[in-house]
Amino acid sequence: MSGRQLHLNVNILHAGFSPAAWRMDGVDPHAAFDVNHYVQVARIAERGTFDAIFLADQAAIADRIDYRPITSLEPTIVLATIAAATERIGLIATASTSFNEPYNIARRFATLDHVSGGRIGWNIVTTADPASARNFGLTGAIDHGRRYERAAEFAEIVKALWDSWEDDAFIGDVAGGRFVDAAKVHAIEHKGAHFSVHGPHNVPRSPQGHPVVVQAGGSDDGKELAARHAEAVFSASQSLEEALSYAQELKTRAQIYGRTGGVPLNLAGLATIIGSTEAEAERRQEELWDRIPLDYSLTRLSGVLGIDRERLKLDEKLPEGIQLPSNGGHTFFKATLTLARSNGFTVRQLIRALNGSTGHRTIVGTPEHIADDIERWFLAGAADGFNLIPDVLPTGLEVFVDTVVPILRRRGLFRTDYEGRTLRDHLGLARPESRFAQPPHKAPALLGATH
Amino acid sequence: MSGRQLHLNVNILHAGFSPAAWRMDGVDPHAAFDVNHYVQVARIAERGTFDAIFLADQAAIADRIDYRPITSLEPTIVLATIAAATERIGLIATASTSFNEPYNIARRFATLDHVSGGRIGWNIVTTADPASARNFGLTGAIDHGRRYERAAEFAEIVKALWDSWEDDAFIGDVAGGRFVDAAKVHAIEHKGAHFSVHGPHNVPRSPQGHPVVVQAGGSDDGKELAARHAEAVFSASQSLEEALSYAQELKTRAQIYGRTGGVPLNLAGLATIIGSTEAEAERRQEELWDRIPLDYSLTRLSGVLGIDRERLKLDEKLPEGIQLPSNGGHTFFKATLTLARSNGFTVRQLIRALNGSTGHRTIVGTPEHIADDIERWFLAGAADGFNLIPDVLPTGLEVFVDTVVPILRRRGLFRTDYEGRTLRDHLGLARPESRFAQPPHKAPALLGATH
Repeated sequence: MSGRQLHLNVNILHAGFSPAAWRMDGVDPHAAFDVNHYVQVARIAERGTFDAIFLADQAAIADRIDYRPITSLEPTIVLATIAAATERIGLIATASTSFNEPYNIARRFATLDHVSGGRIGWNIVTTADPASARNFGLTGAIDHGRRYERAAEFAEIVKALWDSWEDDAFIGDVAGGRFVDAAKVHAIEHKGAHFSVHGPHNVPRSPQGHPVVVQAGGSDDGKELAARHAEAVFSASQSLEEALSYAQELKTRAQIYGRTGGVPLNLAGLATIIGSTEAEAERRQEELWDRIPLDYSLTRLSGVLGIDRERLKLDEKLPEGIQLPSNGGHTFFKATLTLARSNGFTVRQLIRALNGSTGHRTIVGTPEHIADDIERWFLAGAADGFNLIPDVLPTGLEVFVDTVVPILRRRGLFRTDYEGRTLRDHLGLARPESRFAQPPHKAPALLGATH
Repeated sequence: MSGRQLHLNVNILHAGFSPAAWRMDGVDPHAAFDVNHYVQVARIAERGTFDAIFLADQAAIADRIDYRPITSLEPTIVLATIAAATERIGLIATASTSFNEPYNIARRFATLDHVSGGRIGWNIVTTADPASARNFGLTGAIDHGRRYERAAEFAEIVKALWDSWEDDAFIGDVAGGRFVDAAKVHAIEHKGAHFSVHGPHNVPRSPQGHPVVVQAGGSDDGKELAARHAEAVFSASQSLEEALSYAQELKTRAQIYGRTGGVPLNLAGLATIIGSTEAEAERRQEELWDRIPLDYSLTRLSGVLGIDRERLKLDEKLPEGIQLPSNGGHTFFKATLTLARSNGFTVRQLIRALNGSTGHRTIVGTPEHIADDIERWFLAGAADGFNLIPDVLPTGLEVFVDTVVPILRRRGLFRTDYEGRTLRDHLGLARPESRFAQPPHKAPALLGATH
């Protein structure tokens, strides 16, 4: 295999991105709450030699659970379970910097990296939604700028902790009685605006040095965080032009932090609805739409818009003068609303647009159609790969692996087998050296910690 | 099998309780950092039909890592890995209430309970050591009373979140389109001195209703926490008399909270050094002592006492006037120091006493000797079972399972096979009903959460 290679992740969004996914044939309605579902999907992705699976997260119920699954099981525990049931595929989980402590997150992801043999990624997010805030002592969401300030400091601490054991700190000299070379285990002595963390970490450096850091925010602050800390970005462009401009912007921003050589990788979100003919794919989309209760759709839309549900008439346009509440978490809704306005959508059409995706571009079509699109974006430099969001799981991924992947392989765009063992190997990312390993270093070593 | 049955846990304290465990035959020196070691030990315990394995925790390096392993890999991730590799054995991990958020802990342990099919326990601790505090923004340890106040409120919130989904909240009606009965998913609306948590939980009620709550503190505040919240206690009595008095005290305290019927269970810590003859067991103990570097022992002792190392003369008694620093975490050291004084120990003898255990009673002897002791304590009502702390792992557990367990089985004290599937089954603990399930309830249901 030669030439630039495509990267493929799959977002295991419970039963699939469609609110009606759990009602489709081939889906266990209880799947969202059953770890075996996640394991099954990961195995299908591994059969398709995907780079990684990805788990989103939210620490609250922030949707209408009477009608659809939510993000539920805690992702790092799910990753550990998947790690035990797979061999090669990368495993990425989301953990919020807003409601966690950096020492705990550093430790959990380093431990995951150890138990999986170096297959872990951390999707670093900030949490905007007020439902989550109320589960952590706050009455509303934290201010956007402050959230990202905290996130940047959080990421810096986590990476410093991951570096705090040099790679060769462990000795294990049974005869001589020396367990670890304490001079190679370093306090980090971080004191910042949000955190004060002394260190060192209590977990040895993990197989990948750092678990791969991933980021997905599309705001200005989000792009800055990505440019500075991320090694892969989950981007959300709706058109090729937008994607090309995003790719250029990301590159420029990353260069400011001295980062070149294609880092961070740009993985574009891609929701898929696949059929053996275009008509079949469209029928599948119709079926998914039809299975979403109207009550769900109207409640959701009125919630997003912050207006009374009674004002929404299904076959009329949106009432004039409606503004989307200004909230960084609603980029997608804002885009959809703009689209609806410019196309003169009725409420019914708007609902379909909202329910038909997750904020990412959706392709409805045949395997050839999807493969062509992927190839076009990839070759144009609009993306280094894709973060797939199948309509329904496992079936939507299964059909992708069985029909789209073979086309991509025939075209020489995608691996036919894994060549390495770690997520860094799959993504072609270098293993970072510990910042403390550069001689001469001035970092204080851990000298005889006591009780 | 009939009559009252013994319970057995094993504490997988990295390579074993002895600081020299990692240097012994049959031990991989890297074991403490290798999840396969923990899996291997858990499988041996499962072969011995133990009730559970147990993982301690500490979020810092608080010992001389140049000489001995520390608590390192994050315990909930290790439990998830063990869960995937075992079928029946219970799995208990420690998580501190001092440096975590209740929503996160509720969620992680509920998820573990789901993925393990109901085999999880949470050992609720507060964290005293200053090294940990410095990793979480503090300059020193939190005041003892305040720590326990926070722990009690923390436990209350976690249990309320575990109750917040009634057992039958999930519907999964594919035809009708109803996913969950939102009237059976309840906000908890907790507002207290330390936390404010709105709820509901975003994880359905787990197989055990509540993961089993375990507690180990020996202080007055610790006993109160155990009496109120714990379903099993890891106790640390040094003599039968002390244990009987502790058992009575625990019972009395629990009754104040309306808890009867043998809850919490009293599991006594028991460190073991086993030989096929008494002489062989003693030789093994000597060998373990001999392999602990003197530098380690002297540094540790001077640290505990807060005095200069130069003042410690190996073959003399401790200097007069030495006081142990007043710190709740040092109960064991205090007891050892008192013992040393009353026996006229030299520094060398004191070091042996300190290195020879973990704060729990140690038995050095043959399988018969250990089985007799266990039987005596159990029949006297001094313990409902034991939390074993083998000197060396896996070898110290292997010999217990192969030699002590068969004796206990022959005497009708211990199961020959698992009779149930959950940790509650093994421990004979009832599954708690959700507090919201009692009709009539007044708790607010989750009515249409929105974005």
